[in-house]
Amino acid sequence: MNPHQYAASHRDRFLDELKTFLRLPSISTLSEHAADVARAAQWLAEHLRSIGLDRVEIVPTPGHPIVYAEWMGAGADAPTLLFYGHYDVQPVDPLDQWQSPPFEPTVRDGKIFARGATDDKGQVFLVVKAIESWLASSGRLPCNVRLVIEGEEEIGSTHLSGFLQQRRQQLACDAVLVCDTAMFAPGVPSLVYGLRGLAYLEVHVRGPRRDLHSGSFGGAVVNPANALARIIAALHDERGAVAVPGFYDDVRPLDEQERRLLASLPFDEEAFRRELELDALGGEEGYTVLERLSARPTLDVNGIWGGFIGEGAKTVLPAEAHAKISMRLVPDQRPDRIAQLVARHIERIAPAGVRVRVETLHGADPILVERDSKPMRAAARALAQTFGREPVYQREGGSIPVVAEFQRLFGVPVVLMGFGLNTDGAHSPNEHFHLDNFYRGIEAVVRFFEELAGAH
Amino acid sequence: MNPHQYAASHRDRFLDELKTFLRLPSISTLSEHAADVARAAQWLAEHLRSIGLDRVEIVPTPGHPIVYAEWMGAGADAPTLLFYGHYDVQPVDPLDQWQSPPFEPTVRDGKIFARGATDDKGQVFLVVKAIESWLASSGRLPCNVRLVIEGEEEIGSTHLSGFLQQRRQQLACDAVLVCDTAMFAPGVPSLVYGLRGLAYLEVHVRGPRRDLHSGSFGGAVVNPANALARIIAALHDERGAVAVPGFYDDVRPLDEQERRLLASLPFDEEAFRRELELDALGGEEGYTVLERLSARPTLDVNGIWGGFIGEGAKTVLPAEAHAKISMRLVPDQRPDRIAQLVARHIERIAPAGVRVRVETLHGADPILVERDSKPMRAAARALAQTFGREPVYQREGGSIPVVAEFQRLFGVPVVLMGFGLNTDGAHSPNEHFHLDNFYRGIEAVVRFFEELAGAH
Repeated sequence: MNPHQYAASHRDRFLDELKTFLRLPSISTLSEHAADVARAAQWLAEHLRSIGLDRVEIVPTPGHPIVYAEWMGAGADAPTLLFYGHYDVQPVDPLDQWQSPPFEPTVRDGKIFARGATDDKGQVFLVVKAIESWLASSGRLPCNVRLVIEGEEEIGSTHLSGFLQQRRQQLACDAVLVCDTAMFAPGVPSLVYGLRGLAYLEVHVRGPRRDLHSGSFGGAVVNPANALARIIAALHDERGAVAVPGFYDDVRPLDEQERRLLASLPFDEEAFRRELELDALGGEEGYTVLERLSARPTLDVNGIWGGFIGEGAKTVLPAEAHAKISMRLVPDQRPDRIAQLVARHIERIAPAGVRVRVETLHGADPILVERDSKPMRAAARALAQTFGREPVYQREGGSIPVVAEFQRLFGVPVVLMGFGLNTDGAHSPNEHFHLDNFYRGIEAVVRFFEELAGAH
Repeated sequence: MNPHQYAASHRDRFLDELKTFLRLPSISTLSEHAADVARAAQWLAEHLRSIGLDRVEIVPTPGHPIVYAEWMGAGADAPTLLFYGHYDVQPVDPLDQWQSPPFEPTVRDGKIFARGATDDKGQVFLVVKAIESWLASSGRLPCNVRLVIEGEEEIGSTHLSGFLQQRRQQLACDAVLVCDTAMFAPGVPSLVYGLRGLAYLEVHVRGPRRDLHSGSFGGAVVNPANALARIIAALHDERGAVAVPGFYDDVRPLDEQERRLLASLPFDEEAFRRELELDALGGEEGYTVLERLSARPTLDVNGIWGGFIGEGAKTVLPAEAHAKISMRLVPDQRPDRIAQLVARHIERIAPAGVRVRVETLHGADPILVERDSKPMRAAARALAQTFGREPVYQREGGSIPVVAEFQRLFGVPVVLMGFGLNTDGAHSPNEHFHLDNFYRGIEAVVRFFEELAGAH
């Protein structure tokens, strides 16, 4: 039996195991779920041990643990691949919009619905199952592998960087594989060569020392919620660009070649708009939708709250109002510089009569990787064989904080080969993963190990 | 024993009874408190019966009940005073900012802390105790009284108007008394001759059909929270005026005489600012703080919410965002017209890419009453005797929806004689009522009954 046959004949068990993984509510940002995150690390480590990986370790950090494992039996001449993924997930609210509970994985229409299905448990698990398929069918892998699977990706990978630096020697590798991106479209395999970075802020606007009666005080007291709205409105100009001085200083302009490449992708703006049930798209003037989504920086409110938000009418002039605001960044913007620029600007434009405090929550560096490294070509061949068509090369709008760190620390090519779809609802209610892509992902990774070894 | 002596010798019991009244969490806007509102009506009705009032009735409505009582023993030649108040209260959030629980009345530093202490249970109760002081000490009142105490003031007095219209004949009266306003300052008794009106809206901004990943979609999708901020920001101009076309069309300009009257009031802008712990006040250019607070219309956000508002960072592009927005109105603005103007304007300025729906929650007419009617002069004498100084005449920034209705239906003078203070925290955490003002209020109302009868 070869690894492909093995994978094909164990699909049902693979799915059952994935469901078990998805049942663990490993929400890293909510402290009440810390024990669940730990349980997910435990389960994953035991699973990696059970399929034959060596040196399986749960590495504690001041936050959530990192799971490490390796199989180095391919020998010193074979290349070593470091796989990175994460087992933590996003919060689930608004909970009432889920059709089935987020931590009760449910298969409907060939998709598995659960928080983490596509981001990133499902994609971590397909790599694990590709490894198992080799080890169980052939007793070996064509290349050496190291797995680093963290529990803090959704909260900025706070402690991963320290771990990587500390173990830099031990983690030596020839390529890095990340399966946490999306395919360009159903049936269109993709290699991602760019990721946006992130700078995440929380803005606190405080006015009078207590909530006030809007009748007795309205008209003479600056309302923190109105002030917050004015601040947020002032962060974009009329052309849809971010109106913070210096924001675009470090943005690498798109060259004509890349604009042509992006324009050649099979992207249908109309279908994109329709799928979201929007009457119009928006964004920065002078750029295509794809460019806006991946190659241009953004500024979005992720959450806003203040005053009375219950049922009915309360005539209160709130003492404070708050917003979570994040910027997606592109090379060569730096998250700390952008966070500081935006924070200072917000403090500068805040009206007298309120106090504004801006807190930086976390950041991620934007990256671009070489499009024709050896590992990228190996991945392209594996994808072409699996999907029956050449992959497209694309930038992705999301961030994977640690990818820049891998580039910096190991100086090796990074392959971003994901099997999700942008419509999978990552970070949204009803997150799901197409089972078809789960199984094809296993197949593609099985092939990638071989192609990588062959190319070495 | 005269009524003053009676009141003075029963202070402790009066306070105990007030506490019992305040313990009932009669929050009219929250449906889960409907039974508590009913219980408060029941308790109040029983109490009115126990002090000797006649025809005590709990009048059901499709919402919360109205409590009615009367004492008509002064005879056809004596004037009839209709007292209006409300036994419902505002919600209590943010609960964690209360120093003692809102429905466990607690006396500290000569003040009683509880939701409803000043607005309006404490002020209703001082009238009830003034009536009791007459009936218990003298077996009679100098004038006839009717009491209409409703349970929906905080939610727009939805069903009071129907009740008043239906009973218009039966409720015939010579003057209306309302004790639901504030004194100008500690020790400075006040007669309020103007109240602002209200138009309360809820704005719903909807974008994509689900919450989106801000990385995968940010930059090309109009963010409903950013859009809401832009809409709110556009509702004021740079001079602090409301930027909705037509908004000021019906505003009666302040004449020089009234500006002088307001300017003569003992108001200290600096002390006002300091008490709120603000570094600056705000508002409409060209008007004094007092004018902004009482004689000019406003627009305030009362609540705003959307996206992820939990702990930490979630990189979501929210599908929707919402705000509660209300306008305080002055004569001759009409709430329905203003609600429509603002709603239309919001819909007009909403950017493409989001859908905006504006819902009208409730409204109240602004009013001005005659400053030297006979009942006003009777009230002025009662206040002067009680406080040892002449009352000031002022406008108040808040709204009492039903006052305009009383003017329209009965065509009699309305006296707005309140004993609260603007610093009492109505609608805020730690709402309280100075016991001193509670007891002086009883005294003043005891005298008012007599002065009103004498002036007739």
